[in-house]
Amino acid sequence: MRVRNKPWAEPYITAHPNWIVTNPDRWIGKWKERFPNPNQPLQLEIGTGKGQFIVEMAKKYPQINFLGIEIQTSVIAMALRKAVNNELTNIQFLHTDGIMVDRLFNQNEVDAIYLNFSDPWPKKRHEKRRLTSPRFLNSYSKVLSPDAPIKFKTDNRGLFEYSLKTFNNQGLVFDDISLNLHNSPENKNNVQTEYEEKFSQNGPIYQAVVHFNRKN
Amino acid sequence: MRVRNKPWAEPYITAHPNWIVTNPDRWIGKWKERFPNPNQPLQLEIGTGKGQFIVEMAKKYPQINFLGIEIQTSVIAMALRKAVNNELTNIQFLHTDGIMVDRLFNQNEVDAIYLNFSDPWPKKRHEKRRLTSPRFLNSYSKVLSPDAPIKFKTDNRGLFEYSLKTFNNQGLVFDDISLNLHNSPENKNNVQTEYEEKFSQNGPIYQAVVHFNRKN
Ligand SMILES: C[S@@+](CC[C@H](N)C(=O)[O-])C[C@H]1O[C@@H](n2cnc3c(N)ncnc32)[C@H](O)[C@@H]1O
Ligand SMILES: C[S@@+](CC[C@H](N)C(=O)[O-])C[C@H]1O[C@@H](n2cnc3c(N)ncnc32)[C@H](O)[C@@H]1O
Repeated sequence: MRVRNKPWAEPYITAHPNWIVTNPDRWIGKWKERFPNPNQPLQLEIGTGKGQFIVEMAKKYPQINFLGIEIQTSVIAMALRKAVNNELTNIQFLHTDGIMVDRLFNQNEVDAIYLNFSDPWPKKRHEKRRLTSPRFLNSYSKVLSPDAPIKFKTDNRGLFEYSLKTFNNQGLVFDDISLNLHNSPENKNNVQTEYEEKFSQNGPIYQAVVHFNRKN
Repeated sequence: MRVRNKPWAEPYITAHPNWIVTNPDRWIGKWKERFPNPNQPLQLEIGTGKGQFIVEMAKKYPQINFLGIEIQTSVIAMALRKAVNNELTNIQFLHTDGIMVDRLFNQNEVDAIYLNFSDPWPKKRHEKRRLTSPRFLNSYSKVLSPDAPIKFKTDNRGLFEYSLKTFNNQGLVFDDISLNLHNSPENKNNVQTEYEEKFSQNGPIYQAVVHFNRKN
């Protein structure tokens, strides 16, 4: 997803330092302190986009702290604005590349990771950029607490096929697989993303819930 | 699949002892001898149905020996008749329950197992009857040669979701996953079954190619 450069984005981010982190090193080991209820579970979304999912999740689950990671300035500014307008306190943003999570979080610090409609990077030579590639999974494995899930959904068949193989190969345990989420019992609690609303008319939404098997 | 009882089935089976085995214990360790080219790879299909797939495979791959296992008399008689009419010599049938494979074959004797449109048994209490349940997988694992694939295809979403989880849980390695086989590069070599021809208009055909990781 490329969005047009938004001139208001940079100043808006600068004006909301209590909601968004642009100097992540400063917060290593202290992410909890950014939330009014520091002892709540912390869940990450990587590739938050315009923020509809994480904002709805934060409203629905006030007992969880959410942190949205997004690499594009104009995009994260839109997510940030949604959280600010909703006056949500259990949501924070981090403007960085998701590959950094193992440098920025400690083992057991993260209780779930959401990957929603991640960029498919269909060319083999771009495999390393996929958020479900071994390189990224390895980074996630360093920060998740035992049995903490990765919840991945997409409408992209090729990316989902690739991800099932990669999860299996990297020793993740499959908790739940749905090949048509909107037509599954799991859909009851589903919170839709911007992409999901736009593209679910065209075909099925796939979802995988997996976790690392620490015994491996 | 239930088919009407066919009065001709029993006598037809009895009349073709060179093509079909009904006393499997007698052939333990000697399956090779039933084929004119005993040293070719041996591939099994479990739940062969009316035989279209295995007969087409035997025509297409004369350098492989095929053995179709089917539990229903009237159904296996129809498969048998197809092979006889085509005068194929690299195909044999075995009238038994697929769960028996580990009693009837030796380790490394089988080079591939095909499961096509297996009965879904959607009720949880019938899980043990699914041909991809741990009980069956365990039986297959005892007879397959190293890296030999299980190739499973179905149009049944619930059975496929279940099977992906079970394969992963039982330590199988995923070689290939297709969530829309007829719209995939893998389709080039696909041989269709009776069920596949009938039901592929209604939705996607799913396929998984997996193998046991002997190191586990
Ligand atoms: C296709 S959009 C989906 C957005 C949103 N999750 C949704 O479902 O509507 C993918 C998003 O992931 C972001 N992204 C891609 N790679 C990333 C990375 N390595 N780290 C952080 N964000 C990334 C992109 O900038 C883009 O906003
Ligand atoms: C739904 S039909 C599919 C037939 C064929 N494979 C096709 O794709 O057209 C499933 C077949 O598996 C057979 N079957 C079910 N359980 C079996 C078992 N445990 N051992 C052998 N055959 C079995 C059934 O009798 C039935 O003929």
